[in-house]
Amino acid sequence: MKKLSLLGSTGSIGQQTLEVVSLYPDQFEVVALAAGSNLALMEEQVRRFSPRLVSLETKDAADRLAFRLKDHPIPLQVEWGSQGLLAVATHPESNLILSAVVGAAGLLPTLEAIGAGKDIALANKEAMVMAGELIMGEAARRGVQILPIDSEHSAIFQCLEGRRRQDLRRVILTASGGPFRNLPQEQFSEITPERALNHPSWSMGRKITIDSSTLMNKGLEVIEAKWLFDLSIDQIDVLVHPQCAIHSMVEFVDGSVLAQLAITDMQVPILYALSYPHRLPSQRGTLDFSKLSPLTFEELDEDRFPCFSYACEAARVGGSMPTVLNAANEKAVSLFLKRKIPYTAIPLLIRRALDSHTPRPVKDLEDILEADRKVRQQMDVEYEDL
Amino acid sequence: MKKLSLLGSTGSIGQQTLEVVSLYPDQFEVVALAAGSNLALMEEQVRRFSPRLVSLETKDAADRLAFRLKDHPIPLQVEWGSQGLLAVATHPESNLILSAVVGAAGLLPTLEAIGAGKDIALANKEAMVMAGELIMGEAARRGVQILPIDSEHSAIFQCLEGRRRQDLRRVILTASGGPFRNLPQEQFSEITPERALNHPSWSMGRKITIDSSTLMNKGLEVIEAKWLFDLSIDQIDVLVHPQCAIHSMVEFVDGSVLAQLAITDMQVPILYALSYPHRLPSQRGTLDFSKLSPLTFEELDEDRFPCFSYACEAARVGGSMPTVLNAANEKAVSLFLKRKIPYTAIPLLIRRALDSHTPRPVKDLEDILEADRKVRQQMDVEYEDL
Repeated sequence: MKKLSLLGSTGSIGQQTLEVVSLYPDQFEVVALAAGSNLALMEEQVRRFSPRLVSLETKDAADRLAFRLKDHPIPLQVEWGSQGLLAVATHPESNLILSAVVGAAGLLPTLEAIGAGKDIALANKEAMVMAGELIMGEAARRGVQILPIDSEHSAIFQCLEGRRRQDLRRVILTASGGPFRNLPQEQFSEITPERALNHPSWSMGRKITIDSSTLMNKGLEVIEAKWLFDLSIDQIDVLVHPQCAIHSMVEFVDGSVLAQLAITDMQVPILYALSYPHRLPSQRGTLDFSKLSPLTFEELDEDRFPCFSYACEAARVGGSMPTVLNAANEKAVSLFLKRKIPYTAIPLLIRRALDSHTPRPVKDLEDILEADRKVRQQMDVEYEDL
Repeated sequence: MKKLSLLGSTGSIGQQTLEVVSLYPDQFEVVALAAGSNLALMEEQVRRFSPRLVSLETKDAADRLAFRLKDHPIPLQVEWGSQGLLAVATHPESNLILSAVVGAAGLLPTLEAIGAGKDIALANKEAMVMAGELIMGEAARRGVQILPIDSEHSAIFQCLEGRRRQDLRRVILTASGGPFRNLPQEQFSEITPERALNHPSWSMGRKITIDSSTLMNKGLEVIEAKWLFDLSIDQIDVLVHPQCAIHSMVEFVDGSVLAQLAITDMQVPILYALSYPHRLPSQRGTLDFSKLSPLTFEELDEDRFPCFSYACEAARVGGSMPTVLNAANEKAVSLFLKRKIPYTAIPLLIRRALDSHTPRPVKDLEDILEADRKVRQQMDVEYEDL
């Protein structure tokens, strides 16, 4: 029986994880849940999964949840804020932490969970982008597994599982190409949040959907892959594959390639991460190859999607640069979703943040958080009052 | 250092194997070679690879080879016939036997090599079709590896390597569909040997090229996969994939699929079998996905390619039936290549052989060889004098 703590339980990945959990009641038990402010959904999750501990973002939300759950027959501890989040991440009864917090907020709880010796199922790629070296170093020291939830990284993980590391030549991350793969560049300035949020293949959260449309998501995935699989950026190629049937590939030194394919459903990589190192039977969906046909591949057009290049550039520079990239992107996407900047300003703001930052080595979490804070403060001053 | 005996060294797979060996002189050493009657090529191979033992089909050929190699500075034993072939298969210095004999002739030496504790790299699928149960049983008893050379089975082997067997749901063998995939059925009767030997994707021997065109090859591969990977026929699906980029796939119980891809070059699976459990670097060819695009898939049309169905039927019946299928196919292909029967008679002859045979369980090699002999004798009587 695996005992789960879930960071971000009311988000897209969190909800899908609980769907998976509900299908295998003899395999998984939910010990603790953390979320933001979606009281109604959290109440429902508590009634359905009976965790021992929950945490919400604010004291007010926590108090209101406790009130709504007065009649809940099972003892429940209700916490709030960053202390509550850390309590969920390090709950003594849990042995697997699924981190589906969006953005930089997931970093500290992930590190604390690793420090507490928990295995991590990681959907929070921003944590890996900011602090991949710290996370992987700490995981190695504590002997805990980092299991990727991203379908691409799950694919690479599955292809590499049980292989000799020295036989690896490169990984090939596939990319849907996003909803604007074929949109003429001069029309990018007209893209509205509604249009960008309408992703063709995957059902995802808002921030990652925008990142998918700018291909920043693919850039962040390159950085995540670098750390997860201990690769140089030169060992990571990206290939646009609009049908999203091949989730990623691995090429070995003899030219042989292993690819992982599955339906475009996050429950597949979630189930793999939860059940690892085993697999659990799922009727969720078998690929129908005749219907998938044809599968196509094309090169990524970095001129039209500069965010991707910026991510690779930041990864090559290293140190504090990926943190700056990530912070600038989170702010820019947030500004775009608030309709404060046009779609085409997202890469411009990121470019400006990278150009105005002098990269520094990062030796600990404080260095990372400081670089992160500085970019956000600077961008708040410049853009929030637009 | 792996020490190789090569059965069928002058054939297509044999020659390609020696090309691979020549690229890694510090990894592989050729100990013994067996071939049919290609004196000139065998002489060249002896001079290049300096084996300790060679064998040819007849005493006359062996004598002539010995004469041609009088000046060869390295001691060489020259044998002939089935005893010579067995001596090559069981040479005390060799630890890996590559069996690239075509047809039923490869069965006995493969079994003897296993009995002598040698690992087997198996390109001779007919041996597995006739005696898969015997071969795999003996291999398990002796603790030797059977490493497939067929690109499809190498792909499945690579996808399954290091996986939990109970997680497997099915394998998906891919098929090029052969050169007559799109030919109207009414034109099949006009197919000449020259036309059937012109395979679009793979450079192969004559018999296997005809088998590829009738899709009997895919049927034999289904039977081979059944034994190699201990599957039921229901666990083996076949998918037509004309680009031959995906060499085969494996589906796990959670719906996740692993696929192996490589260029269409037999040196890739040969190198894998020789270097297993490691991989050796090869510059032979990296897949260019942009150029491969699009990859297509379609169902196999069993009405137009009845040989495929006959193979699956024989596999389900089991016992002596696959041996009868294989013998009838070898004879029919040989008759077609000699222009004694039209292309469309190949499935008719096989159908007749299956219908006139009462399947029996096979408990040992003699049962198999007897079933094999009987079909060949019967077909000799009926058709050789046409």
